[in-house]
Amino acid sequence: MHDVPAIHAERTSAGWRLPGIANLHSHAFQRAMAGLAEVQTDPADSFWTWRETMYRMAGRFDPDTLRAVATQLYVEMLEAGYTRVCEFHYVHHAPDGSAYAPASAMSDALIEAARVTGIRLTLLPVLYMRGGFDGSALGERQRRFGHEVDAYLRLLADLHARQDDALRVGCALHSLRAVPPDAMDAVLAALPDDARVHIHIAEQVPEVDECIAVRGARPVAWLLEHAPVDARWTLVHATHLDAAEVAGIARSGATVALCPTTEANLGDGLFPLRDYLDADGAWGIGSDSHISVSPVEELRWLEYGQRLVTRRRNIAVRASTPSVGTTLFAGVQASAAASTGFDATDDAVTLDADVPLLAGATADDVLDRWVFAGNRPLVREVHVGGRQVVSEGRHALHEDAARDYASAMQRLLA
Amino acid sequence: MHDVPAIHAERTSAGWRLPGIANLHSHAFQRAMAGLAEVQTDPADSFWTWRETMYRMAGRFDPDTLRAVATQLYVEMLEAGYTRVCEFHYVHHAPDGSAYAPASAMSDALIEAARVTGIRLTLLPVLYMRGGFDGSALGERQRRFGHEVDAYLRLLADLHARQDDALRVGCALHSLRAVPPDAMDAVLAALPDDARVHIHIAEQVPEVDECIAVRGARPVAWLLEHAPVDARWTLVHATHLDAAEVAGIARSGATVALCPTTEANLGDGLFPLRDYLDADGAWGIGSDSHISVSPVEELRWLEYGQRLVTRRRNIAVRASTPSVGTTLFAGVQASAAASTGFDATDDAVTLDADVPLLAGATADDVLDRWVFAGNRPLVREVHVGGRQVVSEGRHALHEDAARDYASAMQRLLA
Repeated sequence: MHDVPAIHAERTSAGWRLPGIANLHSHAFQRAMAGLAEVQTDPADSFWTWRETMYRMAGRFDPDTLRAVATQLYVEMLEAGYTRVCEFHYVHHAPDGSAYAPASAMSDALIEAARVTGIRLTLLPVLYMRGGFDGSALGERQRRFGHEVDAYLRLLADLHARQDDALRVGCALHSLRAVPPDAMDAVLAALPDDARVHIHIAEQVPEVDECIAVRGARPVAWLLEHAPVDARWTLVHATHLDAAEVAGIARSGATVALCPTTEANLGDGLFPLRDYLDADGAWGIGSDSHISVSPVEELRWLEYGQRLVTRRRNIAVRASTPSVGTTLFAGVQASAAASTGFDATDDAVTLDADVPLLAGATADDVLDRWVFAGNRPLVREVHVGGRQVVSEGRHALHEDAARDYASAMQRLLA
Repeated sequence: MHDVPAIHAERTSAGWRLPGIANLHSHAFQRAMAGLAEVQTDPADSFWTWRETMYRMAGRFDPDTLRAVATQLYVEMLEAGYTRVCEFHYVHHAPDGSAYAPASAMSDALIEAARVTGIRLTLLPVLYMRGGFDGSALGERQRRFGHEVDAYLRLLADLHARQDDALRVGCALHSLRAVPPDAMDAVLAALPDDARVHIHIAEQVPEVDECIAVRGARPVAWLLEHAPVDARWTLVHATHLDAAEVAGIARSGATVALCPTTEANLGDGLFPLRDYLDADGAWGIGSDSHISVSPVEELRWLEYGQRLVTRRRNIAVRASTPSVGTTLFAGVQASAAASTGFDATDDAVTLDADVPLLAGATADDVLDRWVFAGNRPLVREVHVGGRQVVSEGRHALHEDAARDYASAMQRLLA
């Protein structure tokens, strides 16, 4: 990628200092179901049976449990090296579908979790209107997620007015299947100029097939033709692409948010990374369902997925960068401001230089060591803006958040 | 797998108690190069360029540095939940190819590392005789690895005489390409009855193609026809198999040692796990090159590799087991004694029950939570036999081993 400078780690008295990492895709509440969807439900188990577990869990949350789970999750993210998170937030209403008072109660829980932990939050309230490409109404368990356009824009305006140094508010379109074209047009036309737009797209093959059947085009091709996709946009997953779509996303300037651990857990398939890098496409990573909360596991397995398929090594390395780790880090940094809305050049993550894994490390190889062999937590300090939020590997709320999380889990699993 | 009982975790006052995990494949010295082979060397980078880095690193070891690196590695293994390790050990001689005095000096270093850390060691000195299927002599950088049959059997007899409760000694054939058929026959005929036999096989496509060209059969097919493969045998990798080979290994009773993180790092390809489980084949895991030292990452990505290819979830789950995590654990336990030579039913790994990830856990889901979402170290205690070697997540030698490792790395990277 000719325009992506290599990232070098800097050796300081505290350790190896790196830029903070942006997490481009999060559904915070799903952290509570990590490891609970690996049971046998159906011989042809797939994404769609996982979704059943997710619906059951989503049905149990209220603002208090959401705040507790998000607080624990954001502590984990900071301790792992993420300093910014894009929250693709769709559990808006009470279980019966009625609005909370205030209507932003669930969003408020996420904002509060971000405030107390110190992570920068790009809040992306999700527009979720229909049950499928056929325009069917939302099912009973999707009622918590739904808005018509006017109510959605009121929520967005309320939240957008609260933007500050640690909060950005943008728009998430759940997916092409959940948002009719005219609603998409109306919302996009009403967005503030600075608002980022994120959308789930082309994650699953059945979704691609339905889009072709109903709209006459593959999802990404349809989106590129019918929406003003540019650098403000983030396409989440974009797993199933043809060559024209790969080139089209790269040309648009949009970022692709890749979520390797979730995409592997859900059996989505593999993104065509090598072709996309050759087209100079922008990309970043997200922990999505939070089955893993580890930027290095995301990066490692993004690269490994390509190696397993191509039977080659060092796929992401480019002529301009000395190694795979530096190339992957450079890619993640290059897209972060466009996708999150935060510049955040003063965020920093410092790795413990004294662990055995980094014995003899140099600025050229420390990222490779961390990304490929960093199985234990190596993050020693994290700074967000000027504020230090992690010391000696622990967030200041490490204990408190864990206690509140355990109590929330008792209620959620009762 | 009809004959593999599910493993359930037991809740004790110390946490969730599980059986110890067997690591079926280790090249200890390679831990020192973790993260150092992810640099750009060749546009068509592959396994074979990785091997160049490995040769350079292997060339620098002596018994002292090997003991230091192995000690750190075994501390890491125990802290991660491995209580047994099969050491596939091929760096036998001085750099110029001459024997150390004693000839077992490098083996002795591994035995000492295992003794001081308390891990059970299945030492498998490697027979490595030729540079390829063409029968060519070993290259200059392979001289440290080589033996003729007589010298090899003397080394094996010396080591075998030292077996005890914590040490087993078996035979490793490096690969079909490195061991001529008549030498294989001679060594197998001379082995003690209790000796396990491990062999690298069908890891890389070029190796499969060469075997077909020279020996007229695929590697696993050739081995099954020409060697008395039974439950004492472990086939390492066995990545590239046809349907007859899948059925043949399963029928033989041999164990396949799968090394998902190394196989991904090297771009080997994906083992046909689903078909092999359907054939009731025995299998276990190994950390091999130690790019990762984490049994849960091995198990998680073993399952995920299959999900990505099949676009289904929960591949390893079977009718007789309640979840993927329990099925994977049961598989690993079922093969451990046959592959390592250790029964070790009194080894135990206890997970910290108080971490957020295990909040509300039950005996039915704790393995899924650990395997799929256990990104931080959760192992609190480890017992090998009656001896507790890890307390509060730390091995007694945690600090000492790290210091000696750092000093060894200074010499290795000088």
